[in-house]
This record gives sequence, C-alpha cells and structure tokens, in this order.
Amino acid sequence: MKKAGILGGGQLGRMLLQEAANYPVETWVMENDPDCPAAHLCHHFIKGDIRNFDDVYNFGKLVDVLTIEIESVNVEALEKLESEGISIFPRPAALRIIKNKIRQKEFYQANEIPTSAFVTVQNKLELENHLSFLPAVQKLGEGGYDGKGVQLLHKPDELSMGFDSPSVLEKKVDIAKEIAIIIAISNKGDIALYPPVEMVFDPYLNLLDFQISPADIPEKLTWRIEAIALKLAKALNSPGLFAVELFIDQSGEVLVNETAPRVHNSGHHTIEAHFSSQYDMLWRILLNYPLGSTAAILPSSLVNLIGEKENAGEAVYEGIEEVLAMDEVYVHLYGKNQTKPGRKMGHITILGSDRHDLVRKAHQVKRMLKVISN
Amino acid sequence: MKKAGILGGGQLGRMLLQEAANYPVETWVMENDPDCPAAHLCHHFIKGDIRNFDDVYNFGKLVDVLTIEIESVNVEALEKLESEGISIFPRPAALRIIKNKIRQKEFYQANEIPTSAFVTVQNKLELENHLSFLPAVQKLGEGGYDGKGVQLLHKPDELSMGFDSPSVLEKKVDIAKEIAIIIAISNKGDIALYPPVEMVFDPYLNLLDFQISPADIPEKLTWRIEAIALKLAKALNSPGLFAVELFIDQSGEVLVNETAPRVHNSGHHTIEAHFSSQYDMLWRILLNYPLGSTAAILPSSLVNLIGEKENAGEAVYEGIEEVLAMDEVYVHLYGKNQTKPGRKMGHITILGSDRHDLVRKAHQVKRMLKVISN
Repeated sequence: MKKAGILGGGQLGRMLLQEAANYPVETWVMENDPDCPAAHLCHHFIKGDIRNFDDVYNFGKLVDVLTIEIESVNVEALEKLESEGISIFPRPAALRIIKNKIRQKEFYQANEIPTSAFVTVQNKLELENHLSFLPAVQKLGEGGYDGKGVQLLHKPDELSMGFDSPSVLEKKVDIAKEIAIIIAISNKGDIALYPPVEMVFDPYLNLLDFQISPADIPEKLTWRIEAIALKLAKALNSPGLFAVELFIDQSGEVLVNETAPRVHNSGHHTIEAHFSSQYDMLWRILLNYPLGSTAAILPSSLVNLIGEKENAGEAVYEGIEEVLAMDEVYVHLYGKNQTKPGRKMGHITILGSDRHDLVRKAHQVKRMLKVISN
Repeated sequence: MKKAGILGGGQLGRMLLQEAANYPVETWVMENDPDCPAAHLCHHFIKGDIRNFDDVYNFGKLVDVLTIEIESVNVEALEKLESEGISIFPRPAALRIIKNKIRQKEFYQANEIPTSAFVTVQNKLELENHLSFLPAVQKLGEGGYDGKGVQLLHKPDELSMGFDSPSVLEKKVDIAKEIAIIIAISNKGDIALYPPVEMVFDPYLNLLDFQISPADIPEKLTWRIEAIALKLAKALNSPGLFAVELFIDQSGEVLVNETAPRVHNSGHHTIEAHFSSQYDMLWRILLNYPLGSTAAILPSSLVNLIGEKENAGEAVYEGIEEVLAMDEVYVHLYGKNQTKPGRKMGHITILGSDRHDLVRKAHQVKRMLKVISN
C-alpha cells in the first residue's frame, strides 16, 4: 500500500481521511495538536510543527506522497523532499507562490490573470503613500487565515489600524457576486473542473455565510471563469487540487481573488452533491488514479457552522436534532471539543433540485442551529 | 462527547467509522486483529476477543453505547452490560434470537412470520430421519458466516457431507427473486424502511453477485415485504438497524430467509444512493438523533469485490484504473492487505436512473476488476 502524508490535521484532513478509507492507502498526519479533528482517523499520527523544517522533512521521509490541508507549512522542507523524490501535491514551487499573498498577486499580474489592482507595502508607514488607493483591502503577506490578517481600509483616518507587516493593498472591488471554482489536475496532466459555486459572506467575520451550487450566472460567465481557472492552474505548473475564489464586479468583469492549493471550504458540498467529491478527487491524484466525474448529482446549498459570538468553551450543538430531522440535509460536525467565536465547527449540505428550496432550507438551518458553549 | 463502542473491526465497522466522523462521538473498536479494516479509524482500538465474556464486558464498561458489526459476539456479556445501564443496539435478547439459526427459525414460526418449512437436527445422524425433507438447505446453528456453514443437500446420498452439529434443515425454496430490506428503529420507536433491493447470488460461493436497487417487483409485493419486515422488527422488540433477507418463490409467496441485526452488505449502496445511508442511520440511532431519510437519490447497482479463486496473498486490484475511469461509479476497497478466495475485499456502487445501464455497468465492473494475489 502507498503511504500518504497530510500536513495539518483540521477538518479538511478529517474529511480527506473519511474518503481515504475507500482506497488502499496507509495514511499519516502531522499536526501539533494530538486531539485535532484528523488525528484519530489516520493510520499514523505524528505530533509535530508543520512550520518547522525538521518536523516536515522527517515526516515527509516516512511517506511516498505528501499533501497539505493548510498553506502555512514549511516550503523549504517540501522543496528538499521533492528533490529527494517524494511526490508532493501541490508542488512546493506552486505552494511558495500561493502561500504569500504578495507573491500570489504578483503571480496573477505576471501571468495576465485578471485580478484587482494592488500595491505592496512593507509596513504600516508605507500605507500613507497610497491614500488615493483607498478604499482597499489590506492582506498580510503571510499568516492570515479564516478572515484573520485581512481588513478593509475605507478612509485615510483608518490607516492607523493597518497591519504593520509586509502586505498587499488591493483596490476594493465593487462586488456583484462571489464565486469559487475547483480545478483538479492529475500527474498526467488530465484536468477536471467542478461547476462554479456562488457564495454569500458574513461581512462581520468575513466567513462564508452560505453557498449555493451551481452559481446562478450566465453561461458565458461560467466559460470565462473556467478559462481563468485553467490558465491559472497551467501557470502554477503543478498537479493537485486548486480552489480559485473570484469576484464578478458590477460591470460583469471576473477577477481572481485568491487561490488555495488544496481541498477547500467551497468544495464541501461535493461530498454528497457530486459523483466524485473534492476529497475523492485529491486521493485519485495522490494515488495516480484517473480523475473522477465532477458532474453534479443534484444542486446544493451549504451552510458553515461557526462558533457563536461570546461563546467559548465546550461545544454544544443547539438545534442539531431539528436539523437532523430535515430531509435531504447532511450534517458534518468536525469533532472539535472546544468552540470559540467564529471557529469553523461543521457544515451542513442541502441537496435539492429547486433553488428556492435550497435557499430557504439554508436560512432555516442557519436559524435553527447554533454552536454555543456549555 | 458520547462514547460509542463497536464489537468487530471488519469492513462494516470501517464504513460505520467513516460516517461517525460527521458526528460528535468518541469511537471505540474491539477486535482481535490490530490490522483489521476498522482499527485505524477509531479513537481507541482495543485488542480483544469479541466471543470472550471478559473481553466484551470490560470493553462495554468503557463506553456509553454499544453496537456490533458481526453476530458472533458474547451475548452473556452484553446482557450483563445492559443490566448495568449500557445502551446496546440491537438489544442482547434480539441478538440471542438471531445469532443462532435454529432459534431464529423458531422465532419466525412462533411469531407467524412467513419462512420456509424446517426441522432441526442435533447431529449428522439425525439427518437420516428427514429424507423426505430433501432437497433442503442445512445451516449450522452457530458459527456460519459468508456462505460458510450453509450447504444444500439435494439427495439422500449427500447426507454424508452434512454438518455434524446442531443445525436447521430448511426446505429448499423454489426461488424467483432474492430480496433484502433494511429497517431502522429508534429508541423512541420511530421506524424507517429502505426500499427493498434485489440480489443475484453466485451459486458456487453463495456470495452476492450483484445487487440492484430498488427491486423490480410489483408494488403489492413491496407492501408485503415491508409489512413482514415491520412485523419481524416489532417481534424482535429492539431498537437498532435490521437487514431482512427474503425469498419470493415461484408462486409469488414471500418468505423470510435470514435477519441480521446490524448494518449489512445489502445496504452498502445507501452510502451514495440514499439521503441517509445505513451507516448514518445507525449513528442516528446510537446517538439518539431523529432517523434520517431512506429515500433514494438515484437507483443503484452494487458489485461485491471478492478475492479470486486460487489467489491468496497480498492483494492486487487488477483493473482498478479502468473502473475508476467510469462515470457514476464509486469504489470502496476495505484496506485488507491479504486476499483469499471468496474474501470480501471491497464493493462498487453504480448510480443511474436507467436500469439497463445499471445492470450493464455492473457486469462491466465484474469483468474488469479482479482481486488477485501478488
């Protein structure tokens, strides 16, 4: 059996491992927290720091093939492992580009991939040179995650709140729709695209509010989005699974926001709604199998279950019974003992052929189900 | 988090644990083989003999709720655990009836559940008293599994091959169709029935050849099957998940063949083909959640992947790439390192709305995919 390693042990790793059990593969996970969501679902759990060179290198030497479930891993170690013959998806060179949001933006620019205008700054002081660029979104080059390290700066008097680290300042886009598309590329160069999905965000936490699949956009825009994802993936020059987040602005222009070189929150619905889920697809890539079918079985909506404000402590899923009593609704809880405000605790997928029904049920689930502390 | 224990660590346990990761539950597995298919997917693996009183009792004391994935467990230990407040699905009293095939037949008779005529024998010698009963199927009271402990005796001169242990001799049914139905009963008494499925068996190995869902039978027969399953489950007087295997004979009569008080091979297709799979459903029962929806998303066929004759050793999945390249086809391999003739190594589920297509693809998969030894 092939030995496969996953760097990171969060919910994405958890769902990868649920799927791994369909294939002949021996699984390894490295993560600092031995109680993380993925720890008990692998053959071998290794406690270690994914940002530490030695930890990542030593872990990588245990396996045949390596993947990530979070970007903040030690890329230098991956590069050394790759040079020593370990298969790594995504390739470390692609991860290096994506991991740093400054480098990511420069990559889009260099490859003529449409994205919002931007400038880079090294510290808070340099923000002053770009007053005319506001309103803009400031993103930390490294270390941001789940809405942290990203903030909107409207006016000059907000610059004092700016991050004081190397970051990118992106011209605020007048967003009409937020879209995500997942693209899979096998080692042989075969490509599969999932249908684009549409997302609604919570403006306060910058976390996904709910998602609907497929996106309600004209066919021409779908083609445009697919073409951009293909161009982007080709330029990254790496097999693997990539989630591309895009904006459609008020004038109908499509702009890439960010890319993740891994399974992604925007693909959770594929577990039930598509013939091959993003998790299944990544295993096919890792194990050198043919790509799966990205076709939808049914349209779907998806609600992220995040920790309620002002609640921190042992997690309680208020309303879980009511949601489980709903038809065509799938509950995924990530097994995190502790909740805190904004923490991703689970997700709910709703299947159905009627779009209004999908939206109605998503709202219903959001109203019913709360993660509070004990 | 509730602590749930599973007795047995085969593929049924494996698939239960894949599903468990959607719920807030701490999982425990007991099994003698630390490399069994379920061992690495639980929070706590305990090496132990499921037939041993002390092992089962001590294991049960570690958890809040207990279930089985195979019948051959120590029922006395379960009875003691139940008397001490551990929740057990199925109830030990129901398991005691089902576990012994003589007692199971007597139970059907006592409860007026239609089943084939039978006599019981204590040893081979007693078979001679029932010459006029042939052709008949002899089943060992205890210890049979996967086609072992079951044999057809056609003529008096075959009696010398008979089992020399307490067993049941069942009048051979002139089978028109083989059907299975899964019924779920919650602790509160709520009931859910999956649509009946239709099965084709390999006459040599007595293992499922392929299965199609839903069964192609008149509505009236479906009602009859549902009524029998309900009556049977009610008589067993136990919450849990039960798979009832039935024959429809040439005259259209429905006869119960056997019942399994657990997730079952005939329910594998529910993972992808139904909104709530049998595995999801059992977790709902174990965790005291509402029952799920048994409705089909799409019709399905299912092929069991069994070890080829004359092949024993490290498993190789010949043709796996070709099958993975087929659309609407799901591959489940059970992670067993060693294959042997007739061993259940995996299954393939095919979804589709066209019945001919489901049959055609099932045959195609059977031709393509072989488990051989290295």
